[in-house]
Amino acid sequence: MIVIKIGGTNGVNVDAVIADVAVQVQVGQKLIVVHGGSGETNAISEQLGHPPRFVTAVSGFSSRYTDRETLEIFAMVTSGKINTILVEKLQKADVNAFGLSGVDGRLMVAKRKEAIRIVENGKQRMLRDDYTGKIEAVNAALLNMLLEAGYTPVVAPLAISHESDAVNVDADRAAAMVAGAVQAEQLIILSNVPGLMRNFPDEATVIPHIDKATVEQSLDFAEGRMKKKVLGASEALQLGVGKVVFADGRIDAPIQAALAGKGTVIS
Amino acid sequence: MIVIKIGGTNGVNVDAVIADVAVQVQVGQKLIVVHGGSGETNAISEQLGHPPRFVTAVSGFSSRYTDRETLEIFAMVTSGKINTILVEKLQKADVNAFGLSGVDGRLMVAKRKEAIRIVENGKQRMLRDDYTGKIEAVNAALLNMLLEAGYTPVVAPLAISHESDAVNVDADRAAAMVAGAVQAEQLIILSNVPGLMRNFPDEATVIPHIDKATVEQSLDFAEGRMKKKVLGASEALQLGVGKVVFADGRIDAPIQAALAGKGTVIS
Repeated sequence: MIVIKIGGTNGVNVDAVIADVAVQVQVGQKLIVVHGGSGETNAISEQLGHPPRFVTAVSGFSSRYTDRETLEIFAMVTSGKINTILVEKLQKADVNAFGLSGVDGRLMVAKRKEAIRIVENGKQRMLRDDYTGKIEAVNAALLNMLLEAGYTPVVAPLAISHESDAVNVDADRAAAMVAGAVQAEQLIILSNVPGLMRNFPDEATVIPHIDKATVEQSLDFAEGRMKKKVLGASEALQLGVGKVVFADGRIDAPIQAALAGKGTVIS
Repeated sequence: MIVIKIGGTNGVNVDAVIADVAVQVQVGQKLIVVHGGSGETNAISEQLGHPPRFVTAVSGFSSRYTDRETLEIFAMVTSGKINTILVEKLQKADVNAFGLSGVDGRLMVAKRKEAIRIVENGKQRMLRDDYTGKIEAVNAALLNMLLEAGYTPVVAPLAISHESDAVNVDADRAAAMVAGAVQAEQLIILSNVPGLMRNFPDEATVIPHIDKATVEQSLDFAEGRMKKKVLGASEALQLGVGKVVFADGRIDAPIQAALAGKGTVIS
């Protein structure tokens, strides 16, 4: 079993990924695709007159504030648009793809972080009614049922809270939790860089291998979005996933390249 | 097995429907929900600067022209927003709902009507690149697998063409095809009227029973949207569905009322 993570519209060559998923499925490889979509959500939020709002948490990290309207736009874009288009493209490539989000059949259950303590104009205050969550459980039986029936699951990054509210979740960490739940041999995280670089953005400094015991030390040189990918990798390995590969999603046959050891392999 | 059709935002009391679905599921009734969403698609299309375009076919009927951008907006609204919200509401009511569209696992395969002959400024011409379809097959095995695993399917009105393009489909006829495929005992079509009226809109003229042999004669007094519902009813009965009920979706416990024979029963 392989879990493939792709972004929404972040420079990954989607058609090359689709063609390569089809190659894997044709040789009998069981495979799950997990995707993101924050970038396109931002664009459509702007168009709908509800621009994304980023806040600074007391930890210093910047994060998206997901009010109810933003959550519904996030669901429209990730689950309605990106997921449908991926399933359609896979079906054209003769893969019997099946799109779902973590809300469907409680595929991904999350703890909702309803309130965030933020810093605004130098003062701390609580921001409530946030619809964001951290995944705590994945319904592996549901994924296995679909896989055994011959479907290839394509998962959108929404989860359902313990109180049954839909919440947005980080897609890299969703992929990690899914890979852990199905005990995948590999989690391949495709993005618009060739791997984890020691000196970002110098692509000549891609690290070919990281020992799983020391993966969290890589946080020191992981830049921006790569930090969450490293955290996801660490979680996946702790959950028993065989290896995690940060691989280049811009090239032809990106999955075959990752399986051949290109990129940064963590094991 | 019961199939329930509800519109998107057409005056149906969604919370009453949800509560009533929960009552049915709790007593062990197997149930599938099919929903629409044209109204909300029109509103969001306007907001996104791509207003809906209606054309007049040579038959004289007015229909929506679904170009690729409209199809993607239709997918966002029906599959991403309305479907997710219905699943979320059902989950809150302790129903293990599972949302999907006809694209997922080729649930509903349609013949795409790629070109429509329209009349514009008194002249006929072909309008191409339409993404609309007529359902020809429903994957009943997939629905039965979900039902047997304890999930309640919630179906958005998108289908996949033989060439694997996503297409929009009429939700009433989708509900009819689904009901036929699973050999439902009843198809309950909830809307904002109390049934089929002999003299629309006089609600005192609701017809309590129509013999299935004469259902197509009802087209003579069916108004507007009700015509497609009557065609759907006729198709469902031909496919072996026990009975079709046009029932009031504005009231409390609308499914229980329909099961008790309120509305227009066709059998």
